[in-house]
Amino acid sequence: MWHYTISMIGTAVFAITGVLALRRDGIDVFGALVLGIVTALGGGTVRDLIIDAPVFWIGDFNYVWVAAGSALMTFFIARPFESTQTLLLYLDGFGAALFAIAATDKVLGLGFAAPVAVMLGVWTSIGGGIARDVLAGRPNLLRSREIYATPILLGCALYILLRAFWPGAQWTGTAALFFIFAFRALVIHRGLQMPAVLSTHRPS
Amino acid sequence: MWHYTISMIGTAVFAITGVLALRRDGIDVFGALVLGIVTALGGGTVRDLIIDAPVFWIGDFNYVWVAAGSALMTFFIARPFESTQTLLLYLDGFGAALFAIAATDKVLGLGFAAPVAVMLGVWTSIGGGIARDVLAGRPNLLRSREIYATPILLGCALYILLRAFWPGAQWTGTAALFFIFAFRALVIHRGLQMPAVLSTHRPS
Amino acid sequence: MWHYTISMIGTAVFAITGVLALRRDGIDVFGALVLGIVTALGGGTVRDLIIDAPVFWIGDFNYVWVAAGSALMTFFIARPFESTQTLLLYLDGFGAALFAIAATDKVLGLGFAAPVAVMLGVWTSIGGGIARDVLAGRPNLLRSREIYATPILLGCALYILLRAFWPGAQWTGTAALFFIFAFRALVIHRGLQMPAVLSTHRPS
Repeated sequence: MWHYTISMIGTAVFAITGVLALRRDGIDVFGALVLGIVTALGGGTVRDLIIDAPVFWIGDFNYVWVAAGSALMTFFIARPFESTQTLLLYLDGFGAALFAIAATDKVLGLGFAAPVAVMLGVWTSIGGGIARDVLAGRPNLLRSREIYATPILLGCALYILLRAFWPGAQWTGTAALFFIFAFRALVIHRGLQMPAVLSTHRPS
Repeated sequence: MWHYTISMIGTAVFAITGVLALRRDGIDVFGALVLGIVTALGGGTVRDLIIDAPVFWIGDFNYVWVAAGSALMTFFIARPFESTQTLLLYLDGFGAALFAIAATDKVLGLGFAAPVAVMLGVWTSIGGGIARDVLAGRPNLLRSREIYATPILLGCALYILLRAFWPGAQWTGTAALFFIFAFRALVIHRGLQMPAVLSTHRPS
Repeated sequence: MWHYTISMIGTAVFAITGVLALRRDGIDVFGALVLGIVTALGGGTVRDLIIDAPVFWIGDFNYVWVAAGSALMTFFIARPFESTQTLLLYLDGFGAALFAIAATDKVLGLGFAAPVAVMLGVWTSIGGGIARDVLAGRPNLLRSREIYATPILLGCALYILLRAFWPGAQWTGTAALFFIFAFRALVIHRGLQMPAVLSTHRPS
């Protein structure tokens, strides 16, 4: 239940932020629909293909309805959201945290080893946004200076660690989720960038 | 048989239009071969991975031979086609209609629900061209103002509707195919664009 | 054993060249990690999805460790490699040959027909680099004038031919590998380009 609820919230958040990211550049309703769905469901689809699980939205089409509805709603009534770019960054950080922990949880639950779960947790969280940017011809986070994926990677590893010490405890997921969101919120609030030693970008 | 024949014709058409789209920008024979095959088989490959069906061209390599042969032929003797850009747009619209209905038919036949079939029907039809454009570094239809995917989406939904009322009737597929092609031909002929209310592109 | 060793060497080589290709443009440690892994494992992952085999690095996570370790090492201590661009081109040619023959071997071993094996052998060899370039927003080899994939395609076909005449002989793989590498080395050494009849690029 916890898993299902946070997955649905994450799906809506990602579809909304996905469409908002593109709306300003010019897009039509079909493009918004497809790219919103890709942002929300793309990462998890690839994850399921890789672990050879049934693709999650085939078995439960509610994911697609939520993604499609959120994308269309955002397309038509986006004006209120557009003045709130900062709020959206936080929302996106929250969605990313939800997806990462839900995916790590799912992969572990299917009996895969911890490193596989961390890798696919991170991928599920960032893959949809990367796929959207590739399809939309925009630069994606892999070439960006922003600290986006590092909190997710550390949070998924932390979740594995907490589960090892307190197996079965519900709070471990919430704690890891909070860790990712707090780290990401700090990055957004302070405008943090990767330290120079961890980047080959020219200082800006 | 109907399904097989239209799939093969669609494969050849997509490989031809795929290579023609790139030929002018400069490409070598290997690039033409790969991108022609991707245009023709890319959408259906992803569809089969998602529904966990055996990838169609693994079981019947004729698809690859037809795509490869059409791509190579177009690469070497394209001059006659190049003066006929408009004809090609119509051909491409016809190929898209064929692929959409054949895919919707296949997914329904495997027992999936109607919304899954519509979604994957549209994807099969547009996915190959999108993959080609991403690999070739060109803008793809998701950011375009052209009305390309809307007729396909409506046609797949119409096909579902007709099948619900006349189950098993062969003409339902032909009717939906004709609907998509006629709508798309109208768009090409009149140069129609998305109405402003369905687009955030600046008016041009 | 032969298969395993050459796959691991190829993985390390591809992760190194993958990161080096991007390091100069500016990238941070996470981007380098992801793109190094994609370069090394991307082609084989898609191959395994298409033939419906378990994804190779899920069952043996050493592939990921080798790719991740090589990518990180290259990110942090790349200076020695950067003065050796030419050496890297040769190394990459060697990695491509390793991957192509190992993949052709794997696909044949699973009972698929020779054309499927050649197609997926070529794909495994070039797919990771193409995926890296798409994700990094760089032009990829499909639009390049360089002779990159042709030696691979011919080498995989040669391997099939040699195996047909001398089934079970170990030297056939080595011979095909040597053929690909020698052809590619000649291309690098002489700066060969596709003959004009096989290309629509303007002469440069």
